[in-house]
Amino acid sequence: MKRQILLISCLFISAALDATQVEQYSVFELELKGPSAGNPFTGVQMSAEFRLMNRSLFCEGFYDGDGIYRIRFMPDEPGNWTYITKSNIKEMDLKKGSFTCVAAASGNHGPVKVRNTFDFGYADGTPFYPVGTTCYAWVHQPEELVNETLATLKKTAFNKIRMTVMPKNYDVYINNEPPFYPFEGSKDKGWDFFRPNPEFFRNFEQKILELQKLGIEADVILFHPYDWGKWNFDKMNTEQAVFYLRYLIARIAAYRNVWWSMANEYDIMRKTDQEWEKYFRVIQSYDPYSHLRSIHNGMEWYNHSLPWITHLSIQTAYLEDIQDWRELYRKPVIIDECVYEGNVPNDWGNLTPEEMVNRFWISYCRGAYCTHGETYIHPENILWWSKGGKLYGKSPERIAFLHKIMTETPLEGVYPHHSIWNKETYLIKDNEFYLHYYGNSQQAKARLYLPKNIRFRLEVIDTWNMTVTPVNGEFSGMIEIPLPGLPYIAVRATALNGNK
Amino acid sequence: MKRQILLISCLFISAALDATQVEQYSVFELELKGPSAGNPFTGVQMSAEFRLMNRSLFCEGFYDGDGIYRIRFMPDEPGNWTYITKSNIKEMDLKKGSFTCVAAASGNHGPVKVRNTFDFGYADGTPFYPVGTTCYAWVHQPEELVNETLATLKKTAFNKIRMTVMPKNYDVYINNEPPFYPFEGSKDKGWDFFRPNPEFFRNFEQKILELQKLGIEADVILFHPYDWGKWNFDKMNTEQAVFYLRYLIARIAAYRNVWWSMANEYDIMRKTDQEWEKYFRVIQSYDPYSHLRSIHNGMEWYNHSLPWITHLSIQTAYLEDIQDWRELYRKPVIIDECVYEGNVPNDWGNLTPEEMVNRFWISYCRGAYCTHGETYIHPENILWWSKGGKLYGKSPERIAFLHKIMTETPLEGVYPHHSIWNKETYLIKDNEFYLHYYGNSQQAKARLYLPKNIRFRLEVIDTWNMTVTPVNGEFSGMIEIPLPGLPYIAVRATALNGNK
Repeated sequence: MKRQILLISCLFISAALDATQVEQYSVFELELKGPSAGNPFTGVQMSAEFRLMNRSLFCEGFYDGDGIYRIRFMPDEPGNWTYITKSNIKEMDLKKGSFTCVAAASGNHGPVKVRNTFDFGYADGTPFYPVGTTCYAWVHQPEELVNETLATLKKTAFNKIRMTVMPKNYDVYINNEPPFYPFEGSKDKGWDFFRPNPEFFRNFEQKILELQKLGIEADVILFHPYDWGKWNFDKMNTEQAVFYLRYLIARIAAYRNVWWSMANEYDIMRKTDQEWEKYFRVIQSYDPYSHLRSIHNGMEWYNHSLPWITHLSIQTAYLEDIQDWRELYRKPVIIDECVYEGNVPNDWGNLTPEEMVNRFWISYCRGAYCTHGETYIHPENILWWSKGGKLYGKSPERIAFLHKIMTETPLEGVYPHHSIWNKETYLIKDNEFYLHYYGNSQQAKARLYLPKNIRFRLEVIDTWNMTVTPVNGEFSGMIEIPLPGLPYIAVRATALNGNK
Repeated sequence: MKRQILLISCLFISAALDATQVEQYSVFELELKGPSAGNPFTGVQMSAEFRLMNRSLFCEGFYDGDGIYRIRFMPDEPGNWTYITKSNIKEMDLKKGSFTCVAAASGNHGPVKVRNTFDFGYADGTPFYPVGTTCYAWVHQPEELVNETLATLKKTAFNKIRMTVMPKNYDVYINNEPPFYPFEGSKDKGWDFFRPNPEFFRNFEQKILELQKLGIEADVILFHPYDWGKWNFDKMNTEQAVFYLRYLIARIAAYRNVWWSMANEYDIMRKTDQEWEKYFRVIQSYDPYSHLRSIHNGMEWYNHSLPWITHLSIQTAYLEDIQDWRELYRKPVIIDECVYEGNVPNDWGNLTPEEMVNRFWISYCRGAYCTHGETYIHPENILWWSKGGKLYGKSPERIAFLHKIMTETPLEGVYPHHSIWNKETYLIKDNEFYLHYYGNSQQAKARLYLPKNIRFRLEVIDTWNMTVTPVNGEFSGMIEIPLPGLPYIAVRATALNGNK
């Protein structure tokens, strides 16, 4: 076969590296020129196989408009990677090349995976403790507001954000037109779901990179029911939806901070289980990196034991069920909605900040993670939960405090427990670590049953006032210590060195 | 048969009536003299049949010591009642007599029964809205403390009290010797469970009458597991237990304010279901008035569908289950323990007053009733929940406020409902009455969906600050009204007259 010489330019996200180097867990991007006639989104197939030693990963490319095609790849190991393209367009077929992947720089830990059955960790082994927030349609807001959202996020400890690909129309709270539409066409003329709007997706992926800079995982919600006839973006048929998924995967799977949230309140969309399965199988087939996958319930319950579900993304009012779900599914549990801090009349949006923080602590001490959202009535109708902007609540800094406590918990062997009346929740590592959380009760004393032959140091944690107060002395066996007699107190017992 | 003339004196609880008259739902007492040799408690059988028109009721008598036998009877209808005794002792057999029952005086409504499947009412039809408290062993305290308890109760709205027949020994909180022991003997020599101590039972029944004067129902706990080897009063065998039940019924069933609570945390006592059934059948057989009957769970669950259970007496942390229990059992539900207001380290005793009141409101709006208890650490170890004394908490006056709200709710056709995330609870009578309780959330607006063609007046109820604030105007259809933006708010919508 005779090969034509074609301009192949390699672009790197990190400008600091030279053109033949790419950082581990960052993006190698191959740009090719090709046809723009017909429908290049569907008429042109184009992919590449990337190889390091005896391992190869397959990546689909995507059409980015103006005759430009791109293949994005995230190398997960340092070394000399080679690639070869495949296309039904001769000029883009069998293009070969190579690049050097260098070790990740400090602060780049790779994508997040499941760790120890119930927890999360980055690819490089660093534990990841999710403390998420919810800004469903923040990318679909005016630039100024988007930048304000990013500036707000920067000041918090939130390290995961739930966000929708499609714009959102919901109740009185959000119904603005987005800066870009995801497809060619219009509501009136109809959308051509086989012609994505590259500008829309460029904007979307750029936001994911902004989040990456802030160390925030993008929990990307692929489908949601909050359209209600405004745009009909929720009206793709199966073939269109599969095309959309493959296009999105080709564009953003190479970003290390992507998680796939199949749908928000999936059951409201009235798709069949078979349809959801098809979409999960598309993700499993076309995402070379196996990013985390979940599906978020409304009132109905998904079968989270299915193999494509990596973790539970739950909406619930019943935090008491967490331990059962852990045991049943043997997967991490994230309580992605347990009502938001705010004061709207809707019953999903008016927790006190105290109760929002309380639910984070209860979830954590029951062996799960929790997600924040904020819905305070706003004069310009900018509610964080849907549009971003500023945070007005009191829970974010307390959630940051909890995140610090999480980082001080032993990495392995910790299990949740609770008192018989479900009022107290505990994280325990036998003989080493006991974190007792007392919720909204007001006991003036804590009674602990510590191992008799091991000495512990104790700290009283005020989860609301964000203080950690050591208790004088060393403790063993059944003990009582005074508490402030206020709600939202925890006690942490840590075995002293040399006692184990 | 030749009959001997014997002294028969008739004593009446109400001294105001002459010797041949007794007030409806009060006690007619027949005193007979008989043998005191041997064991009169078991050797002498003695009972009477009371007849009015074509209806007769059977009552066992009891030995009250010193050769005195008594039969107590509560006439439930005005008219001329006759009676005839039956005994295995000739002098007490076939004694006949009569008395006139006059209509109940004001304030005497008779015993409480189930009303409209899920609610309660007195025998005379007056609704009874239980707002109970818990003072397990108050009758077993020194007289001064007992009087203080009664004085405290008098200042509250509590109209039901959970109290044990047997003294109580529990944790560090209660372990004092009672003023009287229920049986002859001692712990060391053993108790003669077939020889009750009349002094003990006279004291007990006198306390029930004191409660009656205050309008308080005595939820009498017949068995409990809180002895832990201190006295072994929980160690009766079946025969002894049946004897004890018949003796107690003979003494106190004639008091209109008696409810039978078979046991507290029955499952901790490790009796078989057959044994509990036997005891319930004894009560059904020997209590002529069918006082209310329940059994109170620990961790296990009794089959409340059994026919001898008149209502559910539940310990739970899951108020969300109330509506299921109503539908399953079709009986009233009382949440007799949902953790107490207090600050002890035990996880059953450290609710904030806010949460105690919150649980009363949630229970009520889910179609049940709730029971109070108080467990504040006390310098002399006098915790209301076990010993009585003073109340220190902030919930009792708020519970009284709720009681008033209960009396303003329509008597029939009201059903409970809740919002999908279980945050809001509602009592509804379609087209007439809507009570929305918002729990610990802080919405700044309430959104109500009222019928479109009916005008309603609205009130905002602050359940914590105990205020009812009318909202100006008349309302129909979907409306929003401002709320204080604080927790523990309710809204009540009442249809205006002439609109139905």
